[in-house]
Amino acid sequence: MKEPDFQAWSRDVAARMETALAEFLPSQQTVPMRLHDAMRYATLGGGKRVRAMLVFGAGEATGAAPRRLEIVASAVEMIHAYSLIHDDLPCMDDDVLRRGKPTCHVEFDEATALLAGDALQSLAFQLLADHRLAQGGDAQLEMIKLFAAACGSRGMAGGQAIDLDSVGRGITLPELEFMHILKTGALIRASVLMGAQCGSESGGAAIAAAELERLDRYAKCVGLAFQVVDDILDEEGDSAVLGKTAGKDKAAGKPTYTSLMGLAEAKRFALELLEDSREALAGFGERAERLREIADFIVHRRR
Amino acid sequence: MKEPDFQAWSRDVAARMETALAEFLPSQQTVPMRLHDAMRYATLGGGKRVRAMLVFGAGEATGAAPRRLEIVASAVEMIHAYSLIHDDLPCMDDDVLRRGKPTCHVEFDEATALLAGDALQSLAFQLLADHRLAQGGDAQLEMIKLFAAACGSRGMAGGQAIDLDSVGRGITLPELEFMHILKTGALIRASVLMGAQCGSESGGAAIAAAELERLDRYAKCVGLAFQVVDDILDEEGDSAVLGKTAGKDKAAGKPTYTSLMGLAEAKRFALELLEDSREALAGFGERAERLREIADFIVHRRR
Repeated sequence: MKEPDFQAWSRDVAARMETALAEFLPSQQTVPMRLHDAMRYATLGGGKRVRAMLVFGAGEATGAAPRRLEIVASAVEMIHAYSLIHDDLPCMDDDVLRRGKPTCHVEFDEATALLAGDALQSLAFQLLADHRLAQGGDAQLEMIKLFAAACGSRGMAGGQAIDLDSVGRGITLPELEFMHILKTGALIRASVLMGAQCGSESGGAAIAAAELERLDRYAKCVGLAFQVVDDILDEEGDSAVLGKTAGKDKAAGKPTYTSLMGLAEAKRFALELLEDSREALAGFGERAERLREIADFIVHRRR
Repeated sequence: MKEPDFQAWSRDVAARMETALAEFLPSQQTVPMRLHDAMRYATLGGGKRVRAMLVFGAGEATGAAPRRLEIVASAVEMIHAYSLIHDDLPCMDDDVLRRGKPTCHVEFDEATALLAGDALQSLAFQLLADHRLAQGGDAQLEMIKLFAAACGSRGMAGGQAIDLDSVGRGITLPELEFMHILKTGALIRASVLMGAQCGSESGGAAIAAAELERLDRYAKCVGLAFQVVDDILDEEGDSAVLGKTAGKDKAAGKPTYTSLMGLAEAKRFALELLEDSREALAGFGERAERLREIADFIVHRRR
C-alpha cells in the first residue's frame, strides 16, 4: 500500500483543485459579477475531479512539477465544467439537477449559463498560455494544440453532436464507441497526455515517445471504461447517490452500453478495459501506481 | 493613392479569408457532418471581414508574413462567427436573420448551433497553436494569452453579459462605453495587436513596445468607432442593406450611442474617434496607410 492511500490522495487532489480553481477563476466581485458568479458556481464545489486526478497521476508517473499539474488540471476541469453547463441547457439535455444542485441555467438563467460556458473555455486556454508548463514554448504550444483538438468538433463537442443525433434512432456498438471516444474519451486522453508532458521545474528530459504512446493506450481504456460504468450506474443507480437524474438516458431513448450489450456484458467489458489499462502501464513500475488506482476507482465507483 | 486601392485590397482580403477559412474548417464530409456543415455555414460566405482587414493592415505596418496573417485572421474570424451564432440564439438576442441569411439555429437547430459555436472557439485556439506565427514559442504563447483574454469574461463574453444585463434599464454613457470596450473592442484590439506581433518568416526584430502601444491606441479608437457607427446604422438603416433586422436594438430597449447621445452627437463622436485613430498612427508613415483606410471605411460604411 502506498502512502498516502488512494482515498487520502484523491481527497488531497480535490482540495488542491478547489483552491487552484478558486484562485484562477475571476472573483464574484469582478465585473461582470453575475457571469463570474455563474462560472464559479459551475466549476467550484465538487464533482469527482477524475480528470484532475488523471493529470496528477500521469504527472507523477513522469516526474512533473505539481504546480504545473495544478494549472493543467484547472484548465481541464474548466473545460469539463463548461461542457456540463452547455449539455444541461434546455436545447441539449434539458437537465435541472447536477451534482445534487440546480444546474447553472436553473440557478441563473439560460443566457448567463451559455456565456459562462463560453468564457470558461476561453479561460482554460488563457491559463495554458499564461504559465510556464513545459520545457520550452514550442512543447507548450503542442500541449495547447492537443487540448484544443480534444475540445473541438473532432473531440468533445463533436461527440456531443453525435450523441444528440443518436437519440431515438438505433445505433450500432461501434458507432456508440466512436461517439464516446470523442465525447468523454478525448478530454480524458488529453488529461493524461498533458499531465505526462508537463516538465519538472528543474528541467530534465522530455517524456519518451514510447512512454507517451503507452500512456495514450491507458487513457483510451480508461476513457471508455468511464463511460461504460456511467451507463451501468445510470441503469442501476438512484438519483440521490448519483446527484443527477438516474435512468434519464434510457428514458430519453439514448443508446447506452447497457441497452446495447446488456448489463452483465457491460460489467464484463468494464473489467476487461481495466485489465487492458493495467497492461498498458506494465513498463512503468511503481511510478504509475496512482494511474492504476484511478483506473480501479473509475471502474469500481458507485456514482 | 496606393496600389491597389482600398476597395480592391479589401476584396482581396475577403477572398483570401474565404479560401483560408475553407481550408482550416473541417469539410462537410467529415463526421460529424451536420456540425461541420453548421460551422462552415456560419463562418464562410461573407461578412465585412473587418477584423481580418485589421490583422492584415497591422501586419503590413510591421512587415509580417502574409501566411501567418491568414492564420491569425482565420482564428479571429472563427471567434467572431462563434460569437454571432451564440448571440443570435433564442436565449440571447433571438435573431433569425444574419448577413441576409437565416441564422445558424434557424437553418440547423439550436443544439447544433450551440455546439458549432463551441467548436469554432476550440478550433481558433487550435489554429494559433498549430502553426509557427511568431519568432519563438514564447512570443506565440503571449499572443494566445492576449487572444484568450479578449474572448473571455473580461473580454467579448463579458461584454455580452453586460449587454444582456443592460436591456430595459437605464445605463450611463461610461457604462455603455465599458460594455462595448469588452463586447466588440477586445476582439478588434486583439486583431490589431496579433497582426502586428506576427513575425516575418525570415526573422527580423520583434515589434517595439512603443509601436505596439500606439497600435493599441489606434485599435481602441477604431473599436469604439465601429460600435458607434453600428448604432447609427441601426437607427438609420434599412434591413435590406444591413442584412440584419434594423432598429432591433432600439425596439429591444437596448441602450445605444444614438439613444444616449442623440444621432447628431453620435456622428460627431465617430468622426472624433476617426481623427484620434489617425493621430495614434502618426509615427508610422506610409506603412500604416491600410490601417488609416480601414478606420475610414469603418466610420463611413453604409452597412
